[in-house]
Amino acid sequence: MSETASVVVGVDVGGTNIEVGAVDERHHVLCRAKAATPEGGPEDVLKVIIELVGSLDSDPIAVGVGIPGVVHEGRALTVPNLVGWTEDVDLIGPLSDELGVPVTLGNDANVGLLGEWTAGAARGGRNVLGLWMGTGVGGGLILDGRPYVGTRGAAGEIGHVIVAAGGALCKCGRRGCAEAYAGRRSMRGVATTMVDAGRKTSLFTIRDDEGKTKLTSKVWARALEEEDTLATTLFDTAIETLGVAVGSTINLLDLDRVVVGGGLAEKLGQDLADKLYKATRPWMLQPSPDLQFVVSELGDDAGVVGAAVLARAAVVTG
Amino acid sequence: MSETASVVVGVDVGGTNIEVGAVDERHHVLCRAKAATPEGGPEDVLKVIIELVGSLDSDPIAVGVGIPGVVHEGRALTVPNLVGWTEDVDLIGPLSDELGVPVTLGNDANVGLLGEWTAGAARGGRNVLGLWMGTGVGGGLILDGRPYVGTRGAAGEIGHVIVAAGGALCKCGRRGCAEAYAGRRSMRGVATTMVDAGRKTSLFTIRDDEGKTKLTSKVWARALEEEDTLATTLFDTAIETLGVAVGSTINLLDLDRVVVGGGLAEKLGQDLADKLYKATRPWMLQPSPDLQFVVSELGDDAGVVGAAVLARAAVVTG
Repeated sequence: MSETASVVVGVDVGGTNIEVGAVDERHHVLCRAKAATPEGGPEDVLKVIIELVGSLDSDPIAVGVGIPGVVHEGRALTVPNLVGWTEDVDLIGPLSDELGVPVTLGNDANVGLLGEWTAGAARGGRNVLGLWMGTGVGGGLILDGRPYVGTRGAAGEIGHVIVAAGGALCKCGRRGCAEAYAGRRSMRGVATTMVDAGRKTSLFTIRDDEGKTKLTSKVWARALEEEDTLATTLFDTAIETLGVAVGSTINLLDLDRVVVGGGLAEKLGQDLADKLYKATRPWMLQPSPDLQFVVSELGDDAGVVGAAVLARAAVVTG
Repeated sequence: MSETASVVVGVDVGGTNIEVGAVDERHHVLCRAKAATPEGGPEDVLKVIIELVGSLDSDPIAVGVGIPGVVHEGRALTVPNLVGWTEDVDLIGPLSDELGVPVTLGNDANVGLLGEWTAGAARGGRNVLGLWMGTGVGGGLILDGRPYVGTRGAAGEIGHVIVAAGGALCKCGRRGCAEAYAGRRSMRGVATTMVDAGRKTSLFTIRDDEGKTKLTSKVWARALEEEDTLATTLFDTAIETLGVAVGSTINLLDLDRVVVGGGLAEKLGQDLADKLYKATRPWMLQPSPDLQFVVSELGDDAGVVGAAVLARAAVVTG
């Protein structure tokens, strides 16, 4: 009974899916559930979260939620990657009312790093950047041995570190952000343009073959494995660009660890972290000899495990 | 007597001058002394520090020293801007032996921000970047309400945030660092090249008129005041470039304050901070509404006052 009583639930709200997991005190995921992220706005998302948490065979003492937005003092200030979300949404009130336990909210990238820091590849790191390669490029920071979220919860935006002012147009409207070169959305855009211009690539054939509608990380990983020229060029550019952004970050923050996660990290493993290190090295001024580049250990579970840590911390601190 | 007993001495070791000051508990500089930085290496610098401290009419309970290098666990690991310094110099041992009081060492840019944070323009800031415009571009950080120096004391290098990968060659050997556009050394290099190429500027006439051998911040300030075209172009480029670097930093760290210091800040005042804010604004993703750009209040004294704070903290913490 006491073991059951110490279970918490972590919720990872992504642009595509919502994943939930019951997590024990050793940060192991006991059971999982998953559903597509509804596009009708916050109320629909709340409904799906409540259904998913209810579907788990667990009796959690607390729930933690990671969402792709700026979270400050428990409120979601902006959630740019979810459809139908206006500013400043209260998720905690309705969720804790419905679930009957304390609910804690955090930014998904920060929460993912919290998971890796507690139970994964960032364990023992004092000054850590978590870099998540996905549709966009997200990031989180551990500084001086504790999570750093900044003045209003908006810190960690490694994807919007500028690598070439005036360069490629980013979804955010600026020119030259790392994400404009290294986010899958941008990479797909360039690939499409290149195909229109007559360049050959197996990316779209692989996409169809895998039964996907998008160029997922699985599609990219297969194209890279098959040594597709365009895919390799775009991937190399992505890594070179992230090397510049991570180099700037290390010059600012003198880190001891960089953890690389996201779909591509799960597919490529430590090789991805090694490639990023190689691309970063030329840009570092005076790196610590202790600096390490490592791949995520928790993979897809990082968000759920991190959200569970957030939930557990709230129980401890009241 | 008790008032005298609480005086500490701050030492600011720069590439050009060494400045020392006796500082009281309210962070006021009671008296000052100054000498040229010797170029014979650490032992000569130690000698000058000891002479300068001795020349002050004070009986300090502790001494703090800011130096332009990486300081880790009390040792100067690298001091790239001083002539004749090899790696890993012990300054504290010989200095405290000679002066008979505890001596504490810090990086000059971090120490300058510590001064501004304790008694100047960064007071009350929780997440602050200090940006010093000088021969190079230095920086320091306050994060989560305390000084942040990174894994090995090398954090804060805003001058080596990359703004345009592959761009202008920096003294550090990399291409595209902010300092390569916004450091006075680089700006003078471009001005010289332009004059060689036939462009007109009053910069060098003003330099001679002011009796200087270098393009000091006073020379730059006068050329800007006289609306010299080349000086204005180079200054505008410097500010635009720093805007990109500070924008990246804000996207990473979600700051609430940026303090601009250095010689040019003393000459141009708040106008410089306003110009930097204007140049940064287009690059910020989701800045805090509390974000402020302010000019240094302590000016040239920031280093001495900050080093004194360092000295005082060491007395308190033992």
